[in-house]
Amino acid sequence: MDTMSRIQQALHQQLDTAHSASAPPRLMAAMRHAVFPGGARIRPQLCLAVAHACGDNAPALSDAAAVAIELLHCASLVHDDMPCFDDADTRRGQPTVHAVYGEPLALLSGDGLIVLAFQSLARAGARHPERLAGLLDTICTGTGAPDGIVAGQAWECETHASLSRYQRAKTGALFVASTCAGAQATGADPQGWRALGEYLGEAYQVADDIRDVMLNSTELGKPAGQDAQHQRPSAAADLGLLGAVDHFRGLMQHAVDSIPDCPSRNALRHLVWQESERLMPQSTCDRIQQSHGGAVRLTPASVRAPVRGAVV
Amino acid sequence: MDTMSRIQQALHQQLDTAHSASAPPRLMAAMRHAVFPGGARIRPQLCLAVAHACGDNAPALSDAAAVAIELLHCASLVHDDMPCFDDADTRRGQPTVHAVYGEPLALLSGDGLIVLAFQSLARAGARHPERLAGLLDTICTGTGAPDGIVAGQAWECETHASLSRYQRAKTGALFVASTCAGAQATGADPQGWRALGEYLGEAYQVADDIRDVMLNSTELGKPAGQDAQHQRPSAAADLGLLGAVDHFRGLMQHAVDSIPDCPSRNALRHLVWQESERLMPQSTCDRIQQSHGGAVRLTPASVRAPVRGAVV
Repeated sequence: MDTMSRIQQALHQQLDTAHSASAPPRLMAAMRHAVFPGGARIRPQLCLAVAHACGDNAPALSDAAAVAIELLHCASLVHDDMPCFDDADTRRGQPTVHAVYGEPLALLSGDGLIVLAFQSLARAGARHPERLAGLLDTICTGTGAPDGIVAGQAWECETHASLSRYQRAKTGALFVASTCAGAQATGADPQGWRALGEYLGEAYQVADDIRDVMLNSTELGKPAGQDAQHQRPSAAADLGLLGAVDHFRGLMQHAVDSIPDCPSRNALRHLVWQESERLMPQSTCDRIQQSHGGAVRLTPASVRAPVRGAVV
Repeated sequence: MDTMSRIQQALHQQLDTAHSASAPPRLMAAMRHAVFPGGARIRPQLCLAVAHACGDNAPALSDAAAVAIELLHCASLVHDDMPCFDDADTRRGQPTVHAVYGEPLALLSGDGLIVLAFQSLARAGARHPERLAGLLDTICTGTGAPDGIVAGQAWECETHASLSRYQRAKTGALFVASTCAGAQATGADPQGWRALGEYLGEAYQVADDIRDVMLNSTELGKPAGQDAQHQRPSAAADLGLLGAVDHFRGLMQHAVDSIPDCPSRNALRHLVWQESERLMPQSTCDRIQQSHGGAVRLTPASVRAPVRGAVV
């Protein structure tokens, strides 16, 4: 089974455990709506890629970690889309949860997904008790206060916020949790995998800032121009588009260089360059170049063709 | 240290772990506002009373379980008070979180408290790994879908809901988690403590329904008449006030009878009768009797005087 199918299957199984004849049906439908069909599933892919690099000797626990991280990400999107934040009608080209089910069920489905994430860890962790506490702590750290994605979103409610602190918390923290949890699910030391999560997380946020300026709502699958509208810190605003693209390129190079020595190091490097191309396609760079002058080339040309034998 | 001081200290310590120079200050303030000064702390008291009855051989883990349950309860109150649900301006006689900090931070502080609850378990569970998975699963079950407090609140968004299913999920589930987690924190089998949580949880909800009809907003510390205003299922509406009081009395008797044989059984029984008097004081019963006829007596008269030597 390829990694994406593995993730989708594990997510379906976890949602099924929350379902029973005694469950309120609209809540369950809202929770499913928040998770499926889903986006690129980059965080669980990253988690499983690191677990694979570390031997993946407890696949059910790796799956649970990947599922937990994706459910927490989906919960954060549901809450971020609500009227008191972005008031977004669409997400991934679909109506948002509150647009379909109303605000009360959007609020509760986010809460339910957060709890379901931790229940996923509880159930798979019963067979690997010596790994559970560390795994749980890592994922909580990536999610809550003081430095997780909840704190990241909360920086939007402060009058002063540093761009790097905001981006590290809003996006980077769950990427770090993804790489570290992938290692911890196998019983490996997570520290060596931390930098990969940090660089990728920051790069992902910079790409998101650039796309928010460059693309229209149809291309994005969600409202465009949100950063400027909500006066949010943005790499594109701080560095200009060319500067932001240059920053993105540097971060992706650091990410590739940070991958620890392991049997699948080359495959993982390839995966990171592929992700770079997905996040910031050459066509987008060409548009920036046409508008602002200067050549922008992000990834080795070889990566732009499909790659055989990538680990995820 | 008495139990209430133990709970307050453990809650303060847990909130302190979420604080750092890198945290968004208004989020941290909103999270503290949601937790302090707090109400009766009945759920963590119950959790620690059961842990005490089972030997309390890992006090830091018992504290973590009690703290987790109280933080989840506080999070649910913050989200329930928001404009898309009760739109309540006051809670425990104080302005609600969204009234002070706005909707975005109310939403995020609830999310942050949910995550902090599980991080509390992660950190204390590292020293008792063989107990962590079960404890975590119990607390998730009491909180999420299909039958926890999130599902209970979601029944308010359905067109049809059975009163008992709604109350079991909305309130009973976290009481069951409280008694079972108290046992599990000591390594004991939780099953024998399940019924106590079920009966107390249902009794608590029935008392809440009665008070919502009987008391004014000043006496309640929150808006009164909310059940009728939001057309929520209510024992007072279904059974009438006298019938609801009779139902409450029967539930408290079942709760007392369900306490398993243990060295502190008598002290726990006393505690339950004390809680009965706190939840539904004789003065309230007298008012119901005057309005509707018939004598209402809930608890042995001896309980109404302060009791020495109670376990919590």
